[in-house]
Amino acid sequence: MKRVIFMNKIESTFKNSLGQTYEPFKTADLESLEIERVAPKVKTMPTTGTKRVDDIQEVIKRTGLKDGMTISFHHHLREGDYVFNQVMTEIKNMGFKDLTLAPSSLTNVMNDMVVECVKAGVITSITSSGMRGSLGEFVSSGQMENPVILRSHGNRARAIECGEIKIDVAFLAVPCSDDYGNANAVNGKAVFGSLGYARVDAQYADKVVLITDTICGYPNTPISIPQTQVDFVVKVEEIGNPDKIGAGATRFTKDPKELKIAEMVNNVIVNSEYFKDGFSFQTGTGGAALAVTRYLRNSMIANNVKASFALGGITRPTVDLLEEGLIDTIVDVQDFDKGAALGMAENAKQQEIDASFYAGPHNKGAVVNKLDVVILSALEIDTNFNVNVMTGSDGVLRGAIGGHQDAANAKLTIISAPLVRGRLATIVNELTTVVTPGESIDVVVTEIGIAINPARQDLMEQFKNNPSIPVFTMAELQARAEKIVGVPEPIEYTDKVVAYVEYRDGSLIDVVKQVKE
Amino acid sequence: MKRVIFMNKIESTFKNSLGQTYEPFKTADLESLEIERVAPKVKTMPTTGTKRVDDIQEVIKRTGLKDGMTISFHHHLREGDYVFNQVMTEIKNMGFKDLTLAPSSLTNVMNDMVVECVKAGVITSITSSGMRGSLGEFVSSGQMENPVILRSHGNRARAIECGEIKIDVAFLAVPCSDDYGNANAVNGKAVFGSLGYARVDAQYADKVVLITDTICGYPNTPISIPQTQVDFVVKVEEIGNPDKIGAGATRFTKDPKELKIAEMVNNVIVNSEYFKDGFSFQTGTGGAALAVTRYLRNSMIANNVKASFALGGITRPTVDLLEEGLIDTIVDVQDFDKGAALGMAENAKQQEIDASFYAGPHNKGAVVNKLDVVILSALEIDTNFNVNVMTGSDGVLRGAIGGHQDAANAKLTIISAPLVRGRLATIVNELTTVVTPGESIDVVVTEIGIAINPARQDLMEQFKNNPSIPVFTMAELQARAEKIVGVPEPIEYTDKVVAYVEYRDGSLIDVVKQVKE
Repeated sequence: MKRVIFMNKIESTFKNSLGQTYEPFKTADLESLEIERVAPKVKTMPTTGTKRVDDIQEVIKRTGLKDGMTISFHHHLREGDYVFNQVMTEIKNMGFKDLTLAPSSLTNVMNDMVVECVKAGVITSITSSGMRGSLGEFVSSGQMENPVILRSHGNRARAIECGEIKIDVAFLAVPCSDDYGNANAVNGKAVFGSLGYARVDAQYADKVVLITDTICGYPNTPISIPQTQVDFVVKVEEIGNPDKIGAGATRFTKDPKELKIAEMVNNVIVNSEYFKDGFSFQTGTGGAALAVTRYLRNSMIANNVKASFALGGITRPTVDLLEEGLIDTIVDVQDFDKGAALGMAENAKQQEIDASFYAGPHNKGAVVNKLDVVILSALEIDTNFNVNVMTGSDGVLRGAIGGHQDAANAKLTIISAPLVRGRLATIVNELTTVVTPGESIDVVVTEIGIAINPARQDLMEQFKNNPSIPVFTMAELQARAEKIVGVPEPIEYTDKVVAYVEYRDGSLIDVVKQVKE
Repeated sequence: MKRVIFMNKIESTFKNSLGQTYEPFKTADLESLEIERVAPKVKTMPTTGTKRVDDIQEVIKRTGLKDGMTISFHHHLREGDYVFNQVMTEIKNMGFKDLTLAPSSLTNVMNDMVVECVKAGVITSITSSGMRGSLGEFVSSGQMENPVILRSHGNRARAIECGEIKIDVAFLAVPCSDDYGNANAVNGKAVFGSLGYARVDAQYADKVVLITDTICGYPNTPISIPQTQVDFVVKVEEIGNPDKIGAGATRFTKDPKELKIAEMVNNVIVNSEYFKDGFSFQTGTGGAALAVTRYLRNSMIANNVKASFALGGITRPTVDLLEEGLIDTIVDVQDFDKGAALGMAENAKQQEIDASFYAGPHNKGAVVNKLDVVILSALEIDTNFNVNVMTGSDGVLRGAIGGHQDAANAKLTIISAPLVRGRLATIVNELTTVVTPGESIDVVVTEIGIAINPARQDLMEQFKNNPSIPVFTMAELQARAEKIVGVPEPIEYTDKVVAYVEYRDGSLIDVVKQVKE
């Protein structure tokens, strides 16, 4: 049985980053707690001090970085990021050991460097939202001693706020900054829009280094990261290629099956009680999810319905809806393409927020709590509606939690996924890894029809006898998938845990084990 | 000898708010320190929770306020504030005792209520930036057991950041908020522009209550105070009268003497090395200071000089310069009139900042560190350039530190003041109270001419042989003042300390003693 944690059979050797035995995941319905926040140690600036440092090696020295410390980066530049590799090259060359790497996520462009640093003992612990490609394979093959900790974007904010992640030095790429550290991501050469993830690091890290290719006159506005949180500013040649922000998971689909799913997702939204003036939504990324925005636009116009806000992970089609007046406000933690990034500079109603505001489960209320409709993707869904977005059907790490667990809080959480992908079933009896619990999921949409969580009898009523929305049980969908691709060979694992999958409240929802060769 | 502290003769009974013997003031040239920040205790919001509470009495109960706790308010609405009295009436009626009152400052409209609450034992400790009128007289007459602690705006931010002020419950008036606590002060009925002081309270208080007369649709943008920091939202009939923000210290002068001083201040600025393209300035309030902005405007146009930023305490004439293109950015912690407040809604270059960003001495660099020219007012200046803005010549509390100590960090700090006011000398041999140390002051401007701090030989060079800038020594100016009004009777004090005057780093620069009847 793979899902030990989710079944509440937790092992006492499973320890969180504070060395405490993990609490097993209990419920997505989080109770109110009293949390003692932590705060950084601040080296104060004398009146006449300067923050400009000539190069990355020099700034690493100035931060006081030591073996065993925790360093962070953000992933807003995604596959166009140049800063991670520049900084890690210096750190590796300077001979640091035993560091914890705690970025907001890891993109493919960072993989080889991380593997190299792990092999050299420079990095010995990792926490991230995602892990793909060569790094995913490396970790899944058991070559790291310490299990990776996988956290959602909201959970990372929570872990930083309570000290489970204590960032000693944050290295933050910014498209522009003045010489005193006022930075934003809407002006400069490599504009990426929202600095949502990075803002949490800037607030909580002891030492904050901004790395930019564009120094502006003082004071640089708008101010996404304020001078009061910044120790050093370093100018480099280039921080990244903004054309590659949209690479990977954010391409537009032309696949007829994906379009069919998108259309059905839109039918579900439009026929639900939530589709009314002032509703809110998050469409996210992934081929089908992006196409939903196009269908939704037409439905909104046809029904004269306007949205109060769109949330996310923002793409250009959503910004277009804002400009058309179909959305009142975009609440923006991250921009998934250059078009969305550029939108923020032009429209004050594209409001930047930080990761805690987006999804933090232990603050005074994140915006995901206010969300009506979310469309999320899945690598696998089981018949209890549990979702895997982290490992492939071969058990290897090749995904990211992102905001999945967090946004699944919405009143109507829709998983859009094809029944099968190639020769692999998407709807399965048993997941390789549980990431988001089935109790969060309301509807699963496939190309042949939908399944409704039995806990949502109200939705059953709303969608019955609607010819545009064929309703199945999950068992029926699973059987259909199995009929197409058959039953796969079970994956064989060793006993070694290679990754902990935390739920957004810091409990343990699953572990990923080493795949047998 | 009155100035015991400033002369480094500190008494061990002088204790700061943490109960530690005060460090005596040493220097305005603050060294770099490592500071452990504190953080609030956060009651997390369950997914479906609500923040709306019907009335003030109910919200006081919900905050868990207890005897002995610390409560805070802001003074952005100045003499137009309705919220302080509404909240304190309920707190008094509910029978709370032994509270510490820690507002950003106290305006006259709050005075009678504070006196009443002190007499009733509801309030037993006060920290504030200022204290005037009936409250100043009450405290100066020795009727409070605990000395009041007087802090500059930057020092208050510092004290909150390090836990010297621990706010249990903040009651914050906002002109608009959505039902989840996203608030700003640029929309609504009682618009006051920047929420700069309140933002520090929202970040550090355990419980944050927003009090508004305008509930907006969710999400309310721009976001000055974010939902993640807010526990409760209460709607009242009216939070204040924005027409009275400008009352008091911010009127425009027609006094020929004040205009003469303003013209001379402008001559000093324009003839200094700092007056060049990209310079920065803070003019502040007070009759002459406001008029400076008008003269400066003409000089900027005539010399084709534009400012990079203006700082402060902002008034409408400064916003007009922004709109004319004579200033690139306004860095705005507080708006001193309705016109300035309304400006923020219209121009993204009128950038809201919080009090720590403005003036915090123990962060990673406040904007006052970047300031070229500041014009400050004074109740008294002594021949060593020390300045009193806190007590009258009768020794009674009737002023406010405001940002005086903080902004005096500028490269060219100008005190503008008449030689005498009525029958009282402004330039004196000995101050009733030292607030800002002479080492921070570069030039004193009066209606007959200026005095230059002997430490600034460079300025002596810049202003010599300039017929528009007659230069005197402070002794000469003092003698001229004395010749006009004579030597006043010395004030008689008891031994009772009624107020501690902290320097911006939390050291003690002076004490105010009870005035003998």
